[in-house]
Amino acid sequence: MVTRDAARDSDAAGLERAAVLGTGLIGGSVAAALRVLGVTVTGWDLDPTRAARAVEVGAIDSAASTVADAVVDAEVIFVAVPVGVTAEVVTTALAAAPHAVVTDVGSVKSGVVAAVEAVHGADRFVGGHPMAGSEQDGVDGARADLFQGATWVLTPTERTAAETFTRVRSLVAAFGAEVIALTPHDHDRFVATVSHVPQLAASTLMDTALSIATQHETLLRLAAGGFRDMTRIAAGNPAIWPDILTANRDAIVGALDGYLASLSEVRRMVADGDRAGLLTMLQRARHGRRALPVGAAKVDELCEFHVLVPDRPGVLAEITTLAGRQAVNIYDVELAHSLEGERGVMVLVVAAGAAADEFERGLRTLGYAVTRGTFE
Amino acid sequence: MVTRDAARDSDAAGLERAAVLGTGLIGGSVAAALRVLGVTVTGWDLDPTRAARAVEVGAIDSAASTVADAVVDAEVIFVAVPVGVTAEVVTTALAAAPHAVVTDVGSVKSGVVAAVEAVHGADRFVGGHPMAGSEQDGVDGARADLFQGATWVLTPTERTAAETFTRVRSLVAAFGAEVIALTPHDHDRFVATVSHVPQLAASTLMDTALSIATQHETLLRLAAGGFRDMTRIAAGNPAIWPDILTANRDAIVGALDGYLASLSEVRRMVADGDRAGLLTMLQRARHGRRALPVGAAKVDELCEFHVLVPDRPGVLAEITTLAGRQAVNIYDVELAHSLEGERGVMVLVVAAGAAADEFERGLRTLGYAVTRGTFE
Repeated sequence: MVTRDAARDSDAAGLERAAVLGTGLIGGSVAAALRVLGVTVTGWDLDPTRAARAVEVGAIDSAASTVADAVVDAEVIFVAVPVGVTAEVVTTALAAAPHAVVTDVGSVKSGVVAAVEAVHGADRFVGGHPMAGSEQDGVDGARADLFQGATWVLTPTERTAAETFTRVRSLVAAFGAEVIALTPHDHDRFVATVSHVPQLAASTLMDTALSIATQHETLLRLAAGGFRDMTRIAAGNPAIWPDILTANRDAIVGALDGYLASLSEVRRMVADGDRAGLLTMLQRARHGRRALPVGAAKVDELCEFHVLVPDRPGVLAEITTLAGRQAVNIYDVELAHSLEGERGVMVLVVAAGAAADEFERGLRTLGYAVTRGTFE
Repeated sequence: MVTRDAARDSDAAGLERAAVLGTGLIGGSVAAALRVLGVTVTGWDLDPTRAARAVEVGAIDSAASTVADAVVDAEVIFVAVPVGVTAEVVTTALAAAPHAVVTDVGSVKSGVVAAVEAVHGADRFVGGHPMAGSEQDGVDGARADLFQGATWVLTPTERTAAETFTRVRSLVAAFGAEVIALTPHDHDRFVATVSHVPQLAASTLMDTALSIATQHETLLRLAAGGFRDMTRIAAGNPAIWPDILTANRDAIVGALDGYLASLSEVRRMVADGDRAGLLTMLQRARHGRRALPVGAAKVDELCEFHVLVPDRPGVLAEITTLAGRQAVNIYDVELAHSLEGERGVMVLVVAAGAAADEFERGLRTLGYAVTRGTFE
């Protein structure tokens, strides 16, 4: 009998040394979470004073002065530098540590993943994005439990080796995060909608109010709780945004166009006095907001699928992104290679229930032979 | 020597009986705040079960079955019914209680004020809007301290008698609210910007995300704190909005057009990769958000102006809305009529400092003779 926690402990226990490149809030928190699991962590940062500070606050065991020095003994490498330099640091790390698995934490994925896949060793890389904090805030706020209950996206592709995904997935799960696998393209489209456009909408709302408030300071005295809630993210550090807005330009422009079109339709309804139309939209939004998932889902029962798969990396991406699109959380994944080397069995553990049934149908639609095992 | 608290107590102590028409969250909280001040409160509601409930929870002393019965002994009447029926209830109350002062709590002011000003007795009415809660939520959430530290807008006009404004202002101040006087037009324009458009922007953002999430439930799993903050108000009761959006249509369409234009410009900057332009906007918004006033201002020192005024109601509106536009909080106002009946002295108590100096200049620009008294 294998319990989830025991599985997590053993996954983490197999790891002795890791490297974290970029020791800000996210890198520092990853390092701290690794150290809680008993892993020795070497850190490096573009700015050596930040790496030194990470040692001081106890986030990393030691600081190295080059990427090569930091990764020399590492089995797993987390890259937590700003989006604009992530691809470069990842490829340097892959070359300097030819046996290590590498992942990153950047908030935009398509560009980084495409750049990395052009180089040798890309099967040892999987893109990642924990939905918590920012990679440019300081290490002083770092904590080992930052990812507890957070969603952590991984973006395996056809080039990603199953072992790479499994290793990173099990570590991230050991941090307490819920893992979802998505294609880099879907990830970027989704974060444009739930993160990048909301940031722009909030800042623009605040900025529009200011342009009136220049003449009438009173206006801001009238700003009650709703306005404060809506503009809270406008108070964050703007320095991270030019990189993100550049890296995810196409998805953001697409999502902004959708938002502008919807808002123009709302403007039309207000101007026309279309009370029924407005009420319908507001009720739909209310229903959606109330249904927004809060924290990690409670799972009472798990079920296990055994999937007969051809032994090639693309299969992993196909199956994990099917799960991601269906919002099925994969609690464990293991690829058992067959001795003949042509076929294998992929073991997937997911929450039991309607979603699992749909997932099973999806697997069959993709042409896989599936059997349902028991998990206890 | 007169302290602020003593002044408040004596203002409230002069009042023995009040009526509250509409016993939802706001009406119930007004009633509860009045009862704390020792005032006996009779309530009425369009729905008699709501008034009965208000008695049960102790918000009002007794419930009347008609507006006329409710207001018969009242010196002050608060109207807290939905925006769509406010003008009708206010005019009924003015006619039924020919010596009472009447105010309302609706979130849109121009239409109500214009409708009331067309009737006899309008000098006994002043429009109001506490920036807290909603007039359609239930009385079970009512509390006497709901307005503590909240901004409460009053909208005196040329028709408003000084005694009307002074009475309502001192009561509302005794509830712990900070009073700002604005013209109905300015009020409506401002709340369109900081309340109505933000509500529509939040609901539309949620609705846009849902339209994608229909295919990809995962999307909402990626929604982190920023998205939750921005869409929180979308979870509120939509039933109040058709009335508000109808009553404040012109101001909302104007504010929405401003927001749409700003957001289109942001879209252009993203599409063009205008990093500098985006950073400038985001920094301006951050600065504005961080400067947003939090709660009521702490006041260390007050100063008193004596203004020689012609004895007519329009003067009050002119002076209080000057203060409102300059975000000068009037802590006390008193109109001393002269024996001759043509001129009087208006005594105004405001926070000392740069704003008071600017207010003094504004008064002189309007042609008033001003002397600065001492307040201790």
